[in-house]
Amino acid sequence: MSENNLKKKHISELTNPQVGVVGSGSFATAIVKMLVENSKLVHWCVRNEFVKGAIELRGHNPTYLTSVSFKKDNLAITTDINELVSQCDVIILATPSIYLSDTIEKMTCDYSNKIFVSAIKGIVPKHNDVVAHYLRDVFKIGFKCQAVIAGPCHAEEVAMERLSYLTIASAEEVVGEVLKKLFVSDFIKVHTSKDILGNEYSAILKNIYAIGAGMASGLGYGDNFAAVLVSNAIREMEIFLEAIYEEPRDVNESAYLGDLLVTAYSLFSRNRSLGNLIGKGYTVKSAIQSMNMVAEGYYAADSVYKTSKEKGLDLPIIKTVYQILYEEKNAEKSFKKLTQKLN
Amino acid sequence: MSENNLKKKHISELTNPQVGVVGSGSFATAIVKMLVENSKLVHWCVRNEFVKGAIELRGHNPTYLTSVSFKKDNLAITTDINELVSQCDVIILATPSIYLSDTIEKMTCDYSNKIFVSAIKGIVPKHNDVVAHYLRDVFKIGFKCQAVIAGPCHAEEVAMERLSYLTIASAEEVVGEVLKKLFVSDFIKVHTSKDILGNEYSAILKNIYAIGAGMASGLGYGDNFAAVLVSNAIREMEIFLEAIYEEPRDVNESAYLGDLLVTAYSLFSRNRSLGNLIGKGYTVKSAIQSMNMVAEGYYAADSVYKTSKEKGLDLPIIKTVYQILYEEKNAEKSFKKLTQKLN
Repeated sequence: MSENNLKKKHISELTNPQVGVVGSGSFATAIVKMLVENSKLVHWCVRNEFVKGAIELRGHNPTYLTSVSFKKDNLAITTDINELVSQCDVIILATPSIYLSDTIEKMTCDYSNKIFVSAIKGIVPKHNDVVAHYLRDVFKIGFKCQAVIAGPCHAEEVAMERLSYLTIASAEEVVGEVLKKLFVSDFIKVHTSKDILGNEYSAILKNIYAIGAGMASGLGYGDNFAAVLVSNAIREMEIFLEAIYEEPRDVNESAYLGDLLVTAYSLFSRNRSLGNLIGKGYTVKSAIQSMNMVAEGYYAADSVYKTSKEKGLDLPIIKTVYQILYEEKNAEKSFKKLTQKLN
Repeated sequence: MSENNLKKKHISELTNPQVGVVGSGSFATAIVKMLVENSKLVHWCVRNEFVKGAIELRGHNPTYLTSVSFKKDNLAITTDINELVSQCDVIILATPSIYLSDTIEKMTCDYSNKIFVSAIKGIVPKHNDVVAHYLRDVFKIGFKCQAVIAGPCHAEEVAMERLSYLTIASAEEVVGEVLKKLFVSDFIKVHTSKDILGNEYSAILKNIYAIGAGMASGLGYGDNFAAVLVSNAIREMEIFLEAIYEEPRDVNESAYLGDLLVTAYSLFSRNRSLGNLIGKGYTVKSAIQSMNMVAEGYYAADSVYKTSKEKGLDLPIIKTVYQILYEEKNAEKSFKKLTQKLN
């Protein structure tokens, strides 16, 4: 049991905070890899006994980032969220957003004073809101006990130990500093920020823009247009973030623009692939079915478009992607209309 | 002979301004292709009689964008800059920057009131300054008679008639509107701007950043790092542009960020390729020799770094690229140092 549970010390007073990761996909696995660089023991709550057994037996995730080897002694693997939360001071949530509520709503243990860090880049569908709000509203976890991890950070490159930069956003500076120490290594640089909601939303928005970039590519638009699309996307993002959460921010920092770039220009992005299939003429339904991983941007488009409408924002790319995904609008015609609005 | 030469009317009063292009590389050829969409006759000053003869005989440039076919009747090809300038109201300069002075210094005809448009994305080495200043200082062509064409615009995609966006910057709005009419077509959209120097410098700076992106890739850095590099580059660019020429501008517009993206992410960019070779271990000299086209960013790095130093600006990426290109600094070590300064 950690110091935190015995004495309820503040996280900044702990010499050796216990850290745990919830989720067993690519990014969760990448995060565990980052953490074992600094922590002798990393707690890991995985999806089921099969995954647990496979990692314990073979030292790697059986499905995602299989090239990453772990030493058994460095991991305390469980399938029980309460076991993980009880033992940890810092809990990093890294499931796909659609599975988060199923997992975390099993949490019955005392989690006061613990720090919950979202590495989830999506809307919680049941709650139709971002993770930060979901944790606050449903679990009464205040922003002081929250943080957000932002990229640009392809899990696959973390697996290869290619230099990557994280931004950790937290309301309390000390929390950011504690988390920074957990993550910094030869291949990970960390910057801290106070823009929790801005970082969370930008990570969500970029998935919608990646779907848009994929649609454009599938429709036969080229690199010249892609550059125009992305340069409009970052301006849209700025408008959205300012409307949601006023905070002095430069959207050209890596957590915003960098994360958008790494996703919109990646041929491996699930969101871009989904858009690409639709641009090529697949129906939305068949495009979704043909992919075996969740494209977070699909759910995000619905929530973000509706929020932007409520706020009276004019975001042509978001609107176009939404209408193609949810209103059966023809992708070719919709993009032709969109091209008139970009500059 | 054009109306302009007979009566010296202002460009905006001409119903059918005569337009000419100087240069016979990829981008010059792409510009001629854009112009023949709107003008029955486009004047074209090419490098030598061989190129002139080849285009007249076969209807396409013998070396660059050979897939683009022209109708003979639409072109008035010459190798004489004075012939072209005398016959035109609008002269679009599209040579590589290192060849501009050789070409234009032969100009002895009257060129008052004519509009000179730079589509050159480089420093004039002899003058060590941007084209706008070179035209002003050496030829007394004031900013009112100048304009700048900015991308994002790969010539290769124009050849394929893939939708591309141009920004035309001019001090006088009417000049921008006249030029816009010359260029707008089914596959070209045009926005106008007043930021002549900002657009010219950003087109130059992006080539230096593309060399940097190439170096990073050659050194083995991945997509996560590339996104961080580019998101730092646009912030550096903003600092530089503000120091050079104060003007209300949003560097996230397509002419700035879009042009940076299309170059830094393009595997076909000469500048990126130069950097890539150096990153892979070629000496600067051998990397330059192995390329048969001019990498504008090489000359730009020298001029821009020195300007930034004079102005007391801290631009770590520009400095790193400069030191590797001109001070024989080791690329691997220099980038390792640079990674500490990015965020």
